[in-house]
Amino acid sequence: FLSNGTKVLCQSSPPQAGFFPANEGVMLLPGSFKNKVAFITGGGTGLGKGMTTVLSTLGAECVIASRKLDVLQKTAEEISNQTGNKVHAVQCDVRDPASVTACVDELINVAGLPDVVINNAAGNFISPSENLSANAWRTITDIVLNGTAFVTLEVGKRLIKAEKGAAFLAITTIYAESGSGFVVPSAAAKAGVEALCKSLAAEWGRYGMRFNIIQPGPIKTKGAFSRLDPTGMFEKSMIGRIPTGRLGTPGEIANLAAYLCSDYATWVSGAIIRMDGGEYVSMAGEFNDLKKVTKEQWAMLETMIRKTKGS
Amino acid sequence: FLSNGTKVLCQSSPPQAGFFPANEGVMLLPGSFKNKVAFITGGGTGLGKGMTTVLSTLGAECVIASRKLDVLQKTAEEISNQTGNKVHAVQCDVRDPASVTACVDELINVAGLPDVVINNAAGNFISPSENLSANAWRTITDIVLNGTAFVTLEVGKRLIKAEKGAAFLAITTIYAESGSGFVVPSAAAKAGVEALCKSLAAEWGRYGMRFNIIQPGPIKTKGAFSRLDPTGMFEKSMIGRIPTGRLGTPGEIANLAAYLCSDYATWVSGAIIRMDGGEYVSMAGEFNDLKKVTKEQWAMLETMIRKTKGS
Amino acid sequence: FLSNGTKVLCQSSPPQAGFFPANEGVMLLPGSFKNKVAFITGGGTGLGKGMTTVLSTLGAECVIASRKLDVLQKTAEEISNQTGNKVHAVQCDVRDPASVTACVDELINVAGLPDVVINNAAGNFISPSENLSANAWRTITDIVLNGTAFVTLEVGKRLIKAEKGAAFLAITTIYAESGSGFVVPSAAAKAGVEALCKSLAAEWGRYGMRFNIIQPGPIKTKGAFSRLDPTGMFEKSMIGRIPTGRLGTPGEIANLAAYLCSDYATWVSGAIIRMDGGEYVSMAGEFNDLKKVTKEQWAMLETMIRKTKGS
Amino acid sequence: FLSNGTKVLCQSSPPQAGFFPANEGVMLLPGSFKNKVAFITGGGTGLGKGMTTVLSTLGAECVIASRKLDVLQKTAEEISNQTGNKVHAVQCDVRDPASVTACVDELINVAGLPDVVINNAAGNFISPSENLSANAWRTITDIVLNGTAFVTLEVGKRLIKAEKGAAFLAITTIYAESGSGFVVPSAAAKAGVEALCKSLAAEWGRYGMRFNIIQPGPIKTKGAFSRLDPTGMFEKSMIGRIPTGRLGTPGEIANLAAYLCSDYATWVSGAIIRMDGGEYVSMAGEFNDLKKVTKEQWAMLETMIRKTKGS
Ligand SMILES: NC(=O)c1ccc[n+]([C@@H]2O[C@H](COP(=O)([O-])OP(=O)(O)OC[C@H]3O[C@@H](n4cnc5c(N)ncnc54)[C@H](OP(=O)(O)O)[C@@H]3O)[C@@H](O)[C@H]2O)c1
Ligand SMILES: NC(=O)c1ccc[n+]([C@@H]2O[C@H](COP(=O)([O-])OP(=O)(O)OC[C@H]3O[C@@H](n4cnc5c(N)ncnc54)[C@H](OP(=O)(O)O)[C@@H]3O)[C@@H](O)[C@H]2O)c1
Ligand SMILES: NC(=O)c1ccc[n+]([C@@H]2O[C@H](COP(=O)([O-])OP(=O)(O)OC[C@H]3O[C@@H](n4cnc5c(N)ncnc54)[C@H](OP(=O)(O)O)[C@@H]3O)[C@@H](O)[C@H]2O)c1
Ligand SMILES: NC(=O)c1ccc[n+]([C@@H]2O[C@H](COP(=O)([O-])OP(=O)(O)OC[C@H]3O[C@@H](n4cnc5c(N)ncnc54)[C@H](OP(=O)(O)O)[C@@H]3O)[C@@H](O)[C@H]2O)c1
Repeated sequence: FLSNGTKVLCQSSPPQAGFFPANEGVMLLPGSFKNKVAFITGGGTGLGKGMTTVLSTLGAECVIASRKLDVLQKTAEEISNQTGNKVHAVQCDVRDPASVTACVDELINVAGLPDVVINNAAGNFISPSENLSANAWRTITDIVLNGTAFVTLEVGKRLIKAEKGAAFLAITTIYAESGSGFVVPSAAAKAGVEALCKSLAAEWGRYGMRFNIIQPGPIKTKGAFSRLDPTGMFEKSMIGRIPTGRLGTPGEIANLAAYLCSDYATWVSGAIIRMDGGEYVSMAGEFNDLKKVTKEQWAMLETMIRKTKGS
Repeated sequence: FLSNGTKVLCQSSPPQAGFFPANEGVMLLPGSFKNKVAFITGGGTGLGKGMTTVLSTLGAECVIASRKLDVLQKTAEEISNQTGNKVHAVQCDVRDPASVTACVDELINVAGLPDVVINNAAGNFISPSENLSANAWRTITDIVLNGTAFVTLEVGKRLIKAEKGAAFLAITTIYAESGSGFVVPSAAAKAGVEALCKSLAAEWGRYGMRFNIIQPGPIKTKGAFSRLDPTGMFEKSMIGRIPTGRLGTPGEIANLAAYLCSDYATWVSGAIIRMDGGEYVSMAGEFNDLKKVTKEQWAMLETMIRKTKGS
Repeated sequence: FLSNGTKVLCQSSPPQAGFFPANEGVMLLPGSFKNKVAFITGGGTGLGKGMTTVLSTLGAECVIASRKLDVLQKTAEEISNQTGNKVHAVQCDVRDPASVTACVDELINVAGLPDVVINNAAGNFISPSENLSANAWRTITDIVLNGTAFVTLEVGKRLIKAEKGAAFLAITTIYAESGSGFVVPSAAAKAGVEALCKSLAAEWGRYGMRFNIIQPGPIKTKGAFSRLDPTGMFEKSMIGRIPTGRLGTPGEIANLAAYLCSDYATWVSGAIIRMDGGEYVSMAGEFNDLKKVTKEQWAMLETMIRKTKGS
Repeated sequence: FLSNGTKVLCQSSPPQAGFFPANEGVMLLPGSFKNKVAFITGGGTGLGKGMTTVLSTLGAECVIASRKLDVLQKTAEEISNQTGNKVHAVQCDVRDPASVTACVDELINVAGLPDVVINNAAGNFISPSENLSANAWRTITDIVLNGTAFVTLEVGKRLIKAEKGAAFLAITTIYAESGSGFVVPSAAAKAGVEALCKSLAAEWGRYGMRFNIIQPGPIKTKGAFSRLDPTGMFEKSMIGRIPTGRLGTPGEIANLAAYLCSDYATWVSGAIIRMDGGEYVSMAGEFNDLKKVTKEQWAMLETMIRKTKGS
């Protein structure tokens, strides 16, 4: 699937993409996460799988959690085989506080209190808002916002009791800031996650915890694209407005995530890092459409403007 | 209660408060909302009551909704007596989609489709986050975020079907932007509300709807202060950091709200207006504490700085 | 010119524009600015002229200042004839501190210390950034950022000495927040103006001053459009992405400005109010392009999404 | 000086600082910047020296530029001796376009077109705004905003002509976002720099350039602290409000800077990364002062809140 996608991408990429090749090699020094425990929700697929792979490669003992145990187990085995470090799979529906409690019990049981907690599980789909039922709305906010809160509160309380610090990371999205039509429950819930993280960065620093956020732009995972661009018809226009001329990759997110959770970033807290190839600023800036103007047209426009007198 | 509060406030106010007297007279021209229907959640108390009073004074037929029917009815009668315009009280728990549907049915029944919808109902209380249960978390996000969504979706769908436009307004808070410890569920939910409104401002403009937000700073309502400053011990320090030297009043919010929902603001959509006496910028700016430096100390500091050579 | 423009606009407006008619009647109660002095830079043309007209109508004695004395005098006479209140024209190049000092001297001489100060003068033009000389860059930052600072510092110092308060307003733009290609000096300078105002809202509240900002979206003034869309070829696409389906008008800005500078807004300081018909959120939200999807296409997309299994 | 400062810092640090030790070892893999040329303004001292050291360690050929050639030469020699890679010193006053042109000529002459450009030069000092002359204002905006623009435009034009890409980084500050009293020219100019970078991230992506920003919190360099806290009297209160309980270090900024300019971050553009130990969110959040409330007081407050009935 992905390789196919990559091929399409390369054909339609604007020329500047060549300046911005994706380096997906592991960035940090080997052993950076030795003796560390990392807990990643939604770690069985997509970006979560990518982050787990990098943390495991760097020496962390990882625990991944989501609803589909079989998917988790397959991923855990695959990564563990590759890195030689333990990866545990724990079933968990983050919407359900009891399930979260049981999962954190097991996490501590198998690996101990975590040093790294990544709130990456999410749900999303495109829809005109007038087609949303109250249930559809609640499904998304339950997973994304309440799920993140339940995991964070459950793990946080245990850390506080044990007087242990940790680095928390949440994966949100570039439209958490601006909002966006057609993905409104996700926009609202992700904005909530950001406020949660900024709030606890301030409140729980005294307990040794830090909280940061990555806002990814479009990255071709099966989970995201099958629900956000099922026909593939928006991919080209997305790439067209990304200044770096391409989609992102799970490996790039994973390297940034590893940095933020590492000892090199102990002074980063309450920060939001956008990684989107420049898509957000490109969309938001009112005159960026002028990139369509040709050199010849500019010459004409400049003459007209120079002739303008007065207001 | 309020008069008492006002007295305390006046005694501890810094001198500049005299430059910033609160004008609570109704700002817009009489009749500005004639033949308009306004729906205000949480309209029985505090800021909601203030906004209902102003809209009713300006000619709107108002429908107020919340859980306590007796409180609503008392307020409705009081305002109606004062303004001579109809005010209807409808029971509604915004957390419950069925209750919201029934309420909107009644709203349309008694007054017709609304021209103005104000999402003002909310819940909040201060607490260290490690003391929050999953239930406590959910109670706040259910009222504030899901409640706002249910009301907005329910009313919006009916408006779309009827091809009628409307002005929506949500009341959030200044810490929706920054987050804040000790009120984390509220911070997260209010941030979610802002994203919801910005999203629909973009998506539902085509149906004739606009969406805006007021972020109030501290205003001494019973509902807010009894849960956020029960002992009154933080009021003084709050006033001390507000550049305009005083708390806000419900009448000031109401005038701004009326403007935003009026025909003068048809080109305002997706906007967030902070009304907080400058508290937010005053807290957030790193060097604002230097206001404590005296004139004499400044003279000394300036001499020291002038003597500095090189980096 | 404008009437021509208006005709074009009406023809190409999307249907929802009918829901959002511009009410340009004066909003505040007559006499709201009686015995007040207002100082407006760039008050001879465009938005500045619109704000001066409304403040003068409401009773203010106005002083308008910019480089072209003849333009100012014509406007002053026109407005004064219309409102019956004094309007003074003072020549001033805001880039030049000496000119600003002389202008403020004259302002105080003819009308007294101001109650309202509107930093509205600006310069701007579209250009690929690689075509900008250092001089072109400096011309814009000198007018927009330094000019605003010189006026604000000069007036502020006099107010502080006289122990008099005032309401300051600056006119920036929606791309101050996001930045924008092709108008980069303006984006940088306007962002600087916003930081200046937020900073002084915090610092100078103790002297009785408040500072607020309006970020207008596109409004068809001769000054702006002749330098930003000289051929008129971008107007249609701009209107197409504005949720309210039309450009703004000077009267709408003027009513908002009058409110912000009035006694009803003494508790508004350090605020940024976007008035853009929703353009900003519409551009910035990643999935807003989906408004192009038809009902039939949505039905198909929803079927595809429902069939998606797993991540 | 610094060691002294560090000692004071350790004594007054809150207990949680132990959870957040600064890792100043070089983070990226050796050779990450081999065959790359990096140009750093203000590279002779403070944070600029730190970034140059790390980039040089990682293999880059560095060119540092500022006004004091002797300081630059001493730093260049020191770093080069340490890393074994070339470091060139070029005199430049970034306020002067001719000086910038000459400097870029020399940069290209000695090392070739740069792969990395860091706009780090700045000026700043604390002062009540009413004490600022027009000249003082202009000095800061000339260095910080215009200086950054002149360097960026000059280098950018050459890169475009040569069809070569590059990674740009600017060092701003946390109060660029909120503004701040008492450092107003710096706040305005730094906000301008951020808008410049976001704008060009959108516009110049097509030429292979990306633009990012680091907003540092307080880091004890001689240049910054001698002009921002000459007596040292604000350091303690600063540390007191930083959730991670300590100031930052040049090495931490340098590692983040190296990442952002590296091949691992080719998909990061138009991003703003706050590195401040959580200070910003801690200051900005309205209820964060409640961290002063003791456990016993919380018990009492919770009882009072639970007893609250109605609004
Ligand atoms: N890909 C993008 O373009 C993009 C862009 C912006 C943001 N993001 C964010 O990146 C994160 C990862 O997304 P992705 O693209 O990797 O998609 P994905 O593969 O679909 O990842 C979502 C993960 O969440 C888990 N999950 C869903 N509901 C859950 C629940 N109730 N309890 C526990 N786990 C649950 C899923 O596992 P189960 O099905 O087994 O539960 C799945 O592993 C998400 O937060 C997403 O919002 C992605
Ligand atoms: N006062 C401030 O300083 C301040 C500052 C920032 C923001 N705000 C915001 O301003 C708004 C009004 O607050 P306020 O100060 O006026 O306090 P308030 O009087 O307590 O208002 C809250 C209202 O919400 C209603 N409500 C609560 N839960 C509800 C539910 N489940 N369903 C329906 N209605 C419900 C309450 O009525 P019932 O109990 O009858 O349901 C009440 O009328 C809130 O959104 C608040 O967050 C206030
Ligand atoms: N129209 C829009 O779509 C739009 C959108 C966003 C923001 N804005 C902002 O709105 C404000 C007004 O713009 P507008 O559309 O009304 O355009 P405008 O008519 O061109 O107004 C600009 C005014 O600034 C004055 N000015 C320029 N340079 C000056 C200097 N060195 N010293 C003193 N005055 C100077 C001009 O007068 P002289 O030539 O006589 O000096 C003119 O009156 C500006 O701040 C603009 O950035 C406009
Ligand atoms: N340290 C902090 O706490 C902190 C916090 C936030 C942001 N920052 C930012 O970090 C950056 C570095 O600051 P720092 O703390 O390292 O202080 P610093 O050592 O004083 O660095 C400033 C540098 O700028 C150079 N410079 C000043 N004016 C110049 C001009 N006209 N032309 C060329 N170069 C010029 C100076 O060199 P010459 O004197 O030789 O010209 C000096 O090397 C600055 O952008 C600062 O705003 C620092």
